[in-house]
Amino acid sequence: MKIAALAGGVGGAKLADGLSRILPENSLTVIVNTGDDFDHFGLRVCPDLDTVCYTLAGLANPVTGWGREAETWHVMDSLKQLGGPSWFRLGDRDLGTHLERTRLLAEGFTLSEVTKEFCGRWDIKHTILPMSNDHTPTIVHTDEGQLAFQDYFVRRGCQPQVSGFHFESIASARPAPGVMEAIQDAGVVIFCPSNPWVSIDPILSIPGIKETMISDPDGKQIIAVSPIIAGAALKGPAAKMYTELGIQPSALSVARHYGSRTNEGLLTGYVFDILDLDQEKDIQGLGLSTLVMNTIMESSEDRIELAKEVIKFSKSLNLSKN
Amino acid sequence: MKIAALAGGVGGAKLADGLSRILPENSLTVIVNTGDDFDHFGLRVCPDLDTVCYTLAGLANPVTGWGREAETWHVMDSLKQLGGPSWFRLGDRDLGTHLERTRLLAEGFTLSEVTKEFCGRWDIKHTILPMSNDHTPTIVHTDEGQLAFQDYFVRRGCQPQVSGFHFESIASARPAPGVMEAIQDAGVVIFCPSNPWVSIDPILSIPGIKETMISDPDGKQIIAVSPIIAGAALKGPAAKMYTELGIQPSALSVARHYGSRTNEGLLTGYVFDILDLDQEKDIQGLGLSTLVMNTIMESSEDRIELAKEVIKFSKSLNLSKN
Repeated sequence: MKIAALAGGVGGAKLADGLSRILPENSLTVIVNTGDDFDHFGLRVCPDLDTVCYTLAGLANPVTGWGREAETWHVMDSLKQLGGPSWFRLGDRDLGTHLERTRLLAEGFTLSEVTKEFCGRWDIKHTILPMSNDHTPTIVHTDEGQLAFQDYFVRRGCQPQVSGFHFESIASARPAPGVMEAIQDAGVVIFCPSNPWVSIDPILSIPGIKETMISDPDGKQIIAVSPIIAGAALKGPAAKMYTELGIQPSALSVARHYGSRTNEGLLTGYVFDILDLDQEKDIQGLGLSTLVMNTIMESSEDRIELAKEVIKFSKSLNLSKN
Repeated sequence: MKIAALAGGVGGAKLADGLSRILPENSLTVIVNTGDDFDHFGLRVCPDLDTVCYTLAGLANPVTGWGREAETWHVMDSLKQLGGPSWFRLGDRDLGTHLERTRLLAEGFTLSEVTKEFCGRWDIKHTILPMSNDHTPTIVHTDEGQLAFQDYFVRRGCQPQVSGFHFESIASARPAPGVMEAIQDAGVVIFCPSNPWVSIDPILSIPGIKETMISDPDGKQIIAVSPIIAGAALKGPAAKMYTELGIQPSALSVARHYGSRTNEGLLTGYVFDILDLDQEKDIQGLGLSTLVMNTIMESSEDRIELAKEVIKFSKSLNLSKN
């Protein structure tokens, strides 16, 4: 069975890593948000794509979840000495990726071609795809105006109050080669525990992707894993965003966000943390099958355990359907 | 007395450093070749300018003469892992300079504005100017065709046979702000021991520079220090170039290259190494006053000694003139 996973950065990368360790080679395709991508110092930086690649390649910083293991910061030190902007921390090894990607893009290669080349070099045994080769920057609407995503997220440390989002040029964006096929061929599409607003929604907003997910006549399983646990996000501003948008941050809210297939939404199954067991009835009330378990991935074993259970859960949904 | 020095990379930077240490603050202007500048990974790299700045800032690698002291190569390691081009070695700390320069140029600042800002940050007490804010790439004519300078110099390791040079767009290039004034105001202009063909000639080829040097009615001293010692260059391809161009590489040949003021050339004085003492008569025969001494700068003291003697020599020329 082929699996497709949609992912943003750190949280998504952890589950993608768990899946990559338990699934046969080349059976997993991770489709990664590129709405966070931006140009810095003239270099194209793709934070989520790099986080997923570094994680699956075993190169990620195990403490932060983003950036490279055993990273050094000599370029930044030199930059700071010159008074250059240091709000976005570019590690030395990480910079090699941005330099080579920028060079290849300038030579006319697409982002998906570059990503394929890099994944080969990093000996990644599954497929990682950018959601699109078109640039669709995520813009955050805040009480301080519209901010480019990294401006909001890194430079401003998610401090401005959020009132909405849009993804520039998304209406004309095309899925990267392989994305539609991966979704079509997948028995299960997994929404990793990433930010629904700014990690998963950009992917779902590319014309054709949602339609492909729900158009499978045999009924593909679409399973989301909640990034909200006990009202909070383990990482990133998802819970803060919910609150500022006037929505209670909860596993239930995330389930409502994606919607149940039985109510013209996307999901056929939903996975959330044991700490939110009290929401199970309400979530099931949306028409969703549920899996309740520990979803906090502190160790490599946690990643594998969650991945295994999500796959088992998807199979049980197929069985119960037949 | 104000001093202007024309310089390329390592050899030129050493004498410029000696001069900077013995002269009162702000009395020295170093005008640096930018013909070697090129774009790599989308970043503007200015090898000679950086070598001079790093050297005067005390940041240069004391062994190689180029690049930064205590440099690390983590970006390159990462690049190589991705199969990226590694023929031009970009050190981590050095890269900070290229990143910030590229960012400021993209914001609309000129190379001379960027250089001034960097020199301030690096606490350099004299003025370092790029020869021009216009991009005038040095092209080397070889038996393998026309090669961009870094292609010839670094990628091909100076292996192709040289038949000539040209400096793209030089006819329309303007001296950077301050360059003409520095030459006008200087009592002495010193051609540092840099490659005549590809370090000093680009500077001299900018319209107006030569004319300004020789138009001083009081007779400015123009003194070159030979980069050729005992038929060889201490660093770089100058001697090889001479041979391939059908000219004996020697201190005499360099003196002929620039020419004596008394014979419609540029120089009023010439400094060359004691190892070439046998050429003194021929050099004087060109109409040049000469200073023969050790010009090999192995230590910081050597740089200072050469700088002191060149200044003393220029004063003696003024005295003998009056």
